[in-house]
Amino acid sequence: MNKLLIVGTVAFDAIETPFGKTDKILGGAATYIGLAASHFKVQSAIVSVVGDDFPQEYLDLLSSRNIDLTGVEKVSGGKTFFWSGRYHNDLNSRDTLDTQLNVLAEFNPVVPENFKDADVVMLGNLHPNTQISVLDQMTEKPKLVVLDTMNFWMDCALEELKEVMKRIDVITINDEEARQLSGEYSLVKAAEVIRQMGPRYVVIKKGEHGALLFDKHDVFFAPALPLKEVFDPTGAGDTFAGGFAGYLAQSSNISFKNMKNAIIYGSNLASFCVEKFGTKRMEEIAKVEVKDRLQQFKMLTQFDIELSE
Amino acid sequence: MNKLLIVGTVAFDAIETPFGKTDKILGGAATYIGLAASHFKVQSAIVSVVGDDFPQEYLDLLSSRNIDLTGVEKVSGGKTFFWSGRYHNDLNSRDTLDTQLNVLAEFNPVVPENFKDADVVMLGNLHPNTQISVLDQMTEKPKLVVLDTMNFWMDCALEELKEVMKRIDVITINDEEARQLSGEYSLVKAAEVIRQMGPRYVVIKKGEHGALLFDKHDVFFAPALPLKEVFDPTGAGDTFAGGFAGYLAQSSNISFKNMKNAIIYGSNLASFCVEKFGTKRMEEIAKVEVKDRLQQFKMLTQFDIELSE
Repeated sequence: MNKLLIVGTVAFDAIETPFGKTDKILGGAATYIGLAASHFKVQSAIVSVVGDDFPQEYLDLLSSRNIDLTGVEKVSGGKTFFWSGRYHNDLNSRDTLDTQLNVLAEFNPVVPENFKDADVVMLGNLHPNTQISVLDQMTEKPKLVVLDTMNFWMDCALEELKEVMKRIDVITINDEEARQLSGEYSLVKAAEVIRQMGPRYVVIKKGEHGALLFDKHDVFFAPALPLKEVFDPTGAGDTFAGGFAGYLAQSSNISFKNMKNAIIYGSNLASFCVEKFGTKRMEEIAKVEVKDRLQQFKMLTQFDIELSE
Repeated sequence: MNKLLIVGTVAFDAIETPFGKTDKILGGAATYIGLAASHFKVQSAIVSVVGDDFPQEYLDLLSSRNIDLTGVEKVSGGKTFFWSGRYHNDLNSRDTLDTQLNVLAEFNPVVPENFKDADVVMLGNLHPNTQISVLDQMTEKPKLVVLDTMNFWMDCALEELKEVMKRIDVITINDEEARQLSGEYSLVKAAEVIRQMGPRYVVIKKGEHGALLFDKHDVFFAPALPLKEVFDPTGAGDTFAGGFAGYLAQSSNISFKNMKNAIIYGSNLASFCVEKFGTKRMEEIAKVEVKDRLQQFKMLTQFDIELSE
C-alpha cells in the first residue's frame, strides 16, 4: 500500500452558521484531509501538534481510520490551536472571530521514520517554513507533493511561500487567493503565472462553483454537487484536497487523466463535508454513498455529442 | 427544416467595460439569440420593433443569416430601444446608465403568418404581456417554448410573469433571479419551486460559473469555458439561450439527454460572445471554431472513472 504523509493542523473549531452554532469541536486541516484520505487504500500519517487539552477521543477517531498519529506531538501544559468563525447568510463568506495559535506558535514538525519515504506528501495549510521543514526531512523524493495554502501566508510570508512552491507538484488554492498570488484576474492567466512559480499543476477551488485543474496544456473542471442544504462549509477545501491526494496516493498514477478523477473524488467527498457541522458528516460516510455520488457526478457532467454533427 | 420563432429586443447598446467603450452599437436580446441560432439548420424569424433611426445594415446583417425579419416592425418617426451600461472591474456586475424604451413602450408583437406554427418559440426578455401575446397568436401548439426573463419583471409585473410561466416548457434565468423568484437560496430548492410555477425544465445561468439544467429528477451542469480574456459580457445570456433553443429546434428531440447537448452548445456560443464588444465576435464565428470549442468542452468536463473501483 502506498504511503500518504499529511501535514496540517489538528485543532479546535467553534463555528457559527445561519443554522446554529457549536462549542469547541474537532477541526483542523489535517483532520479533514485525513478523514477524506481514509476512503482510499493508503497508509496515512499525520504530522501535527496539539496541547494536552485535546481529547483522546478525537485522536482515537483518527486512529480508528488507520491514520498513523506517531507524528502528532502532544505538548504538555500546552493549549491546542483554536479557530472560531461566523459564516454569513450566503455561506460563501465568513468572519474570523478568534484565532489562538497556542502550541502551533512553536511547532517543529517531526516526520515519523517510516513515513520519510512517503509516496505522496500533502502539505496542508500551515506556515510555509513548516511545510519546507517537512520536505527537508524526506529521505526519498516523493512521487507527488501537494500544497494547500491561503492568503494569510501571502500577506505575511510570501517569500517563504515562494520557496516551498518551487518544491511541489500541485498547489490547491482558492480563486481569490489565485488572483492575489498572480496579480491576474482571469483564472486562466492566474494559473499560468502560478505554474511558473513552481508547481506543474494548479488546482483552483471555487467553493460552490467547483474546481479547475490546470497543467501547461489542459484544463479540467469539476462542479460542486448541487445540494439542497449546505449546513457548514468548514473543512470543505481540506476535504477536497484530502480526497484528491488520497485518490492519487492509492492509484500511483500521476497523469492529467488520472488527476481528473482525483478532482472528482475530492469534490465528491467535499459534498458530504458541508452537510453537517464540523467533521460530523465525514465521520459517518458509507462506502456506498461515495459510489452513489460518483454516479451523480457522472449524471451531472457527462454528455454525448457527436463531433461530426 | 424546423421553425424557430424568436421574440425580443432589436436595439442599440452603448457599453463601457474596463477595456474600452462603445457608441451606440447593435444590441438587443433577439439580435444575440438570432445570431446564436443561426449556427443551426433552422428557419428563424424575429418578432420585434425598431425606430426609423435603426440602420438598414444592422437588419441586413440579420437577414444575411437567413433570419426572417417580416415580424420586425419599423415605427416611422419612432426611436429604437436604447440601453447603456457600465461593467465593473470584475465584469460580473454592471450599472445601467440609461434605458430609453422608445418604440418598445407601445410594442404590439405580430407573429408572421408562416411562423404561427413554429416548432420552437424563444421568448426573449420582454414584458410578460408581450410574451403572452406571442403565444396567443400561435395557431399550433409549439413543441417547445423557452422563456428568458429578468428581475425587472419580477419587480414590476410578477403576476403577468407567473401567467406566462404556466405556458412554457423551459425557463432560463440567472442565479440571483432564481433566488428572488423562488425565495430559496439553494439553487436546487429554487429550481424546484420555479418548476412548480409551470416550466418542466429550469435552466439557471451563473455567468462565468456556468449553467445548471433541472427537471423533476435530474440535474446537469455545464461550465463556462475558462477564457484568458473576457472583454464584454453583454449578450452572453441571450447567446446562451439562442444556442440552446437553436440546437433543440434543429434536432427536434426534447429529451433531458438532448437538452444537455443544447446547454453545451449554448455555453459554447456564449464563450465567443464575450470575446469582443457587442455582437462583433458573434458576426465572425467560423463553423470550425464552434467544433473546436466543442472538443474543448469535452476535454474540460469528461472523465472516465470505473464505478467498480
